[in-house]
Amino acid sequence: MAFTYLDNKDLDYVLTEYILHISGKIDRPIEQIDVTRSLGRTTSGAVYAAISSPHYLASAMDGIAVIAAKTFGATETSPVILAEHEDFERIDTGDPLPEKFDTVIMIEEVIELDNGRVKLINAGFPWQNIRQIGEDICQGEMIVPSNTVIEPATIGALLAGGVANISVLKKPLVGIIPTGDEIIKPTGNPAKGKIIEFNSSVFSAMLSSWGADSKVYDIVPDKFDLIRSAAMNAAGECDIVLINAGSSAGRDDYTSRVIAECGEVLFHGIAIKPGKPAILGVIQNKPVIGIPGYPVSGIIIMEQIVKKILELYIPGKFPLRPGIKARLSRRIVSSLKYREFIRVKLGDVAGNIIATPLTSGAGVITSFVRADGLLVVPQNTEGYEPGSIVDVELLKNISDIKNTLVITGSHDPLIDEISDMLRTGSPEFFIASSHVGSMPGLMAVKKDEAHIAGIHLLDENTGEYNSSYIKKYFSPGKTVLVKGVKRSQGLIVAKNNPLNIKKISDLDGNNIRFVNRQKGSGTRILFDYLLSRENINPEKIYGYTREEYTHLSVAVQIAQGSADAGLGIFSAAKIYGLDFIPVCEEDYDFIIPENIIGTPYVQKFLDILKSAEFRKRLTGMGGYRLEDCGNIPI
Amino acid sequence: MAFTYLDNKDLDYVLTEYILHISGKIDRPIEQIDVTRSLGRTTSGAVYAAISSPHYLASAMDGIAVIAAKTFGATETSPVILAEHEDFERIDTGDPLPEKFDTVIMIEEVIELDNGRVKLINAGFPWQNIRQIGEDICQGEMIVPSNTVIEPATIGALLAGGVANISVLKKPLVGIIPTGDEIIKPTGNPAKGKIIEFNSSVFSAMLSSWGADSKVYDIVPDKFDLIRSAAMNAAGECDIVLINAGSSAGRDDYTSRVIAECGEVLFHGIAIKPGKPAILGVIQNKPVIGIPGYPVSGIIIMEQIVKKILELYIPGKFPLRPGIKARLSRRIVSSLKYREFIRVKLGDVAGNIIATPLTSGAGVITSFVRADGLLVVPQNTEGYEPGSIVDVELLKNISDIKNTLVITGSHDPLIDEISDMLRTGSPEFFIASSHVGSMPGLMAVKKDEAHIAGIHLLDENTGEYNSSYIKKYFSPGKTVLVKGVKRSQGLIVAKNNPLNIKKISDLDGNNIRFVNRQKGSGTRILFDYLLSRENINPEKIYGYTREEYTHLSVAVQIAQGSADAGLGIFSAAKIYGLDFIPVCEEDYDFIIPENIIGTPYVQKFLDILKSAEFRKRLTGMGGYRLEDCGNIPI
Repeated sequence: MAFTYLDNKDLDYVLTEYILHISGKIDRPIEQIDVTRSLGRTTSGAVYAAISSPHYLASAMDGIAVIAAKTFGATETSPVILAEHEDFERIDTGDPLPEKFDTVIMIEEVIELDNGRVKLINAGFPWQNIRQIGEDICQGEMIVPSNTVIEPATIGALLAGGVANISVLKKPLVGIIPTGDEIIKPTGNPAKGKIIEFNSSVFSAMLSSWGADSKVYDIVPDKFDLIRSAAMNAAGECDIVLINAGSSAGRDDYTSRVIAECGEVLFHGIAIKPGKPAILGVIQNKPVIGIPGYPVSGIIIMEQIVKKILELYIPGKFPLRPGIKARLSRRIVSSLKYREFIRVKLGDVAGNIIATPLTSGAGVITSFVRADGLLVVPQNTEGYEPGSIVDVELLKNISDIKNTLVITGSHDPLIDEISDMLRTGSPEFFIASSHVGSMPGLMAVKKDEAHIAGIHLLDENTGEYNSSYIKKYFSPGKTVLVKGVKRSQGLIVAKNNPLNIKKISDLDGNNIRFVNRQKGSGTRILFDYLLSRENINPEKIYGYTREEYTHLSVAVQIAQGSADAGLGIFSAAKIYGLDFIPVCEEDYDFIIPENIIGTPYVQKFLDILKSAEFRKRLTGMGGYRLEDCGNIPI
Repeated sequence: MAFTYLDNKDLDYVLTEYILHISGKIDRPIEQIDVTRSLGRTTSGAVYAAISSPHYLASAMDGIAVIAAKTFGATETSPVILAEHEDFERIDTGDPLPEKFDTVIMIEEVIELDNGRVKLINAGFPWQNIRQIGEDICQGEMIVPSNTVIEPATIGALLAGGVANISVLKKPLVGIIPTGDEIIKPTGNPAKGKIIEFNSSVFSAMLSSWGADSKVYDIVPDKFDLIRSAAMNAAGECDIVLINAGSSAGRDDYTSRVIAECGEVLFHGIAIKPGKPAILGVIQNKPVIGIPGYPVSGIIIMEQIVKKILELYIPGKFPLRPGIKARLSRRIVSSLKYREFIRVKLGDVAGNIIATPLTSGAGVITSFVRADGLLVVPQNTEGYEPGSIVDVELLKNISDIKNTLVITGSHDPLIDEISDMLRTGSPEFFIASSHVGSMPGLMAVKKDEAHIAGIHLLDENTGEYNSSYIKKYFSPGKTVLVKGVKRSQGLIVAKNNPLNIKKISDLDGNNIRFVNRQKGSGTRILFDYLLSRENINPEKIYGYTREEYTHLSVAVQIAQGSADAGLGIFSAAKIYGLDFIPVCEEDYDFIIPENIIGTPYVQKFLDILKSAEFRKRLTGMGGYRLEDCGNIPI
């Protein structure tokens, strides 16, 4: 079987050519619907008012209807006295103006006398407080033009104009065909080698939020004939067909051949990253898109290509996302060959919007859950230096981003618990956390790139944690050390400790598969300290260079049998029912710039640290002591 | 019956106190739903991963799995040769790593030989191109905290983490009770004095877009007992109850008394405009809000109060709307007593965002269809001068506003036809039109507040249209006159002309009810010219001071019998089947600043003027000649 090589065509070129190719071929069917059910739909033609609104002269106030001329000359000293049913009629807002009258005096200006008489001390003028016929809408007037997305107020205007049904563009139906021998429907218990298929659910939700309908077909195994018949069937039933995975050039990647055989492949391979192996084709005059399998690549292709194709069916639905200028916290290195879409976290720190690139791969769907924006690095650009001001397309609302407490530094699952407690008690605030390790976290706070860092940095000379690092890196008074927890660090090993590991030195040369933490993390620093204390050469530790970024991801390797031991915290071992050999207790504390201690979200954060609920949660997780938690040592 | 006087309490105070009062009383029920159906829903608690993703060591590439050590030292001159099933296995993206291997070489680096052998010229290093267990999600890790709104990527992360069902906050059910003797269900043929009830549909659509469910009850007449039983019933069935209209202090306004009798009225009367008469109460521990009847007031109360109450049920759904700085085109005069919410149109003209207040009353729902933003004038502020830079809350997407061609000046229904044609052919662009009259339109272009103005300004000295005004008001070359249409102006009178009106002088002193156009409009200037030519004193014209803003609204008064004659264009008369006595033909042209002639939307505008489709549409409307349409005289 031959390996095909992909093109590397410019995205804008591909889109322009492809849309030119298909736009004459596709149907844009319309349907009549009830106006009350038209929210978010797109008009297929101009809509004109059937009646005027108001359709009669109506009072705009609660008051009395009179002939203006009868009130002329009224003053405090020479009031005008009027008799009900003779000179005036009582009238409420919206009531029709009785034929003989031409003005309305508002009730606040009417002084009640006896016998149904009233006194006026101000004159009225003709046509005051009267809603003219057609003040809102004139019969025959255009209420909305073609290709208008219906909003709540539009519904009101249409109904006011006597329009009960309108013609709208039918929602395009998008068929989604998941393919692959290894993928299975969502389950809580997948077999080894089986991958849960969730892309179709993500794409379906995206399509729904864009105003399209979707139909997810059964998973099709990697068999050419099966994919071909699924594609033909979907092209018959749907307006657009998405074939997921099978778009790169690997062993079982049939999508391109299927589209070529059933119709035509126009493009295969686009100069973007992620998303390069996308396929743009046509079967039976229906757009058929081959979408790469990695979820992040898939989302990018949905956004950059499928959304643009939908614009042909439901124009006017897709305004550009707002952008923002942000300061880049880390270097971005980009290939000259590709336009790159970089997911970034955004935070409002010290008055600047900081963009921190999320470096995880295209397979990491949680990176899109955490992303606040997309940074587009153009082709022929090598990237950006830290500190550069870059344009970021917002994926989240800027007001939410400004209400987000940015926590970085060392990983501990307790940060997630704080996040949950914050969202429970103060849902106007958010926490964005990243796990870069203690030292990078400390530097991020120093560089005004984060509000808070969790650190557990051992001073090898004193055996103390954290305080000497603050003295070294911050000017006095600039940064506050907030006491967090004392937590147990130890060796995490398989349940019942089958290799009988007792101490750090057991790792030395015994072919025990160790899994390490990344450089700069407090746990890595601790491990190196423990090795040096025992005079163990790191090269003798099998797996010393195998790095994970969190306690949980260390523990999970051991739980799944891909490693035998790792250094980590008790609560991580407990989640997986693993054995834990305590090595030491350390201080996991927080550093916070002094000038933001008083902000509402930091105060909420400190309240949580001191709360009984937090103590309860951490006691449940195990391995923590909270004696000083939330205290600020002087 | 007593007239009650309303309070005038500060909005923030009212909201804070009210929410404090109800927040302990209300239920926040939860429900379990399928993750694939959870888009836009709000988590009721933290969600933790049931499994890791990936849950096994998997290849991150299409390629071959090998033991890294066997590839060490491979170079172009001393390649490593490996045998299938012995030294390597072929592996695709996502395949589990066979147990004995610890690295993957991507297929692009594999040189195929015969007999299943391959050649490598680069070494691999351990764990490269392998997705570690838990790279995306570790079992036991928090995927999302409480009160998180589910987005498409969240659905993917939850499914990847083995979570098929989640607990979410139930959508609050909001009951809407329309009340009023005069209101009727939407119809195309309302009787005089009957008002089409569309507020419930607008509110329902707003609630739906906010993630709440709604139930619209039947219209309840203005009877105390009926409103009381409807309110009690709705409080039993719903989480929140809205009683529409009957919230001011008029004759039939029972809402406040009903709430007081069935429960408690906490506030009645808020220092905002529009929306002052709102009522905030409680029945059976359910929030009950009395919403004013005018649609704009109602929308403001929905936005400012009901949305804030919904936040108690579905927190985290309501980020602040983005704001923008804009330059005010007209003076705003605001009462010191109220916080005022001013609807504004926005346009991007000459590099500035221009905000033009929409001055229509609270009864005009179309003003909300046309509004792009809300300008909030604080209490104790007298307003703003023209040219002030103000903060505007965006109701529409800023990218759409920047793609909007702002057309002002004289009214003609042909502008709506151009708008429809633009949206049909170029749905990326929009037209925002307003009808201020020819002279104000000309001034708006001069002051860079609009892109285009339609004008028909007669020079009484020369009898010519438009050109002399351009010479007078603009520097040479700064502004381009684009020829529009010649259109018939004449007297619009009732069908079959029952009063036998033949000419302008027939209006003089004959008690014919005339309806005029507003000062500054080209038609008003024409009418004054015609009167002066005939030596008629305007005071002798009955209705001279009764002003309408469009040709259609003049014609509709005549069609509905509230006036006998008006000056206007043929196409307006034709819509209502009215008689038309031609008076003159005038030049309705466009002025466009020279420096925007080349912009895409102006070019599209000019293309439309010259198109056969436009000619066809105007021929159908009648009263136009298009000989020079779209031409630019030198």
